[in-house]
Amino acid sequence: MDENEIREVIAGKEAALQAGDVKAMLAYYGPAVVEFTLAPPLRQAHDAQDPAPVEQWLATFEAPPSRESTQLEIAVAGDVAFTTSLDCMRATPKGATESFELWFRSTRGLRKIDGRWLITHEHDSVPFEMDGSLRASVGLKP
Amino acid sequence: MDENEIREVIAGKEAALQAGDVKAMLAYYGPAVVEFTLAPPLRQAHDAQDPAPVEQWLATFEAPPSRESTQLEIAVAGDVAFTTSLDCMRATPKGATESFELWFRSTRGLRKIDGRWLITHEHDSVPFEMDGSLRASVGLKP
Repeated sequence: MDENEIREVIAGKEAALQAGDVKAMLAYYGPAVVEFTLAPPLRQAHDAQDPAPVEQWLATFEAPPSRESTQLEIAVAGDVAFTTSLDCMRATPKGATESFELWFRSTRGLRKIDGRWLITHEHDSVPFEMDGSLRASVGLKP
Repeated sequence: MDENEIREVIAGKEAALQAGDVKAMLAYYGPAVVEFTLAPPLRQAHDAQDPAPVEQWLATFEAPPSRESTQLEIAVAGDVAFTTSLDCMRATPKGATESFELWFRSTRGLRKIDGRWLITHEHDSVPFEMDGSLRASVGLKP
């Protein structure tokens, strides 16, 4: 049952993103979140409950991006859980005519707080090329 | 007590790395590991218990790298835990005269199996620049 609730958190947040509903997205976060996102810095310093950074990020696209989690695995015991998945984001940058597709790794940590599973940690990333170019590996697929 | 045991897993694996003791490093892994490392692919396909990839990686350095976890946070309940940290690796590539220092984000998932905490998930990454260069952000510090 906890696994199902956690799947619903992930699916619900994806649906809220695609709807551009920032308030609904943020409702899936716990009161304190350790956030390691695709973009610098190493660790986000802002409050995860602050809508402004999400709104600014959404404004860089023609429409809210879609995000899909695949190969989702869930480990859960008591009020602690973590999930791993390979996720695909599709979006069209503001002013662009074509969309891009980006596959990345995602780890989420969750806590059950007052009977509800909430995200308290998010780690999204791509690896980088070890050929000396130090380029982010943005063209990988599972 | 679980928290202390998890801290010992992380410190023990770091000590084994610095000693170049691959067998001791691999003893901290569970039987099935979801591995998202700094290098491609998105998800490591090899068995985490296989010493060959670790030995090949160690052979690219003059001496075994050091790795230090900072800002370590642990969430644990029952037989499931996850940790977040900002880690620093210091190493000298084979043939180089100077060492490099790399700060990255690390998330670990652990399971308590037969009374022992073992790593079943590892996600190490740096973010990448959103300025169009798509360069990995390898120069960040906490």
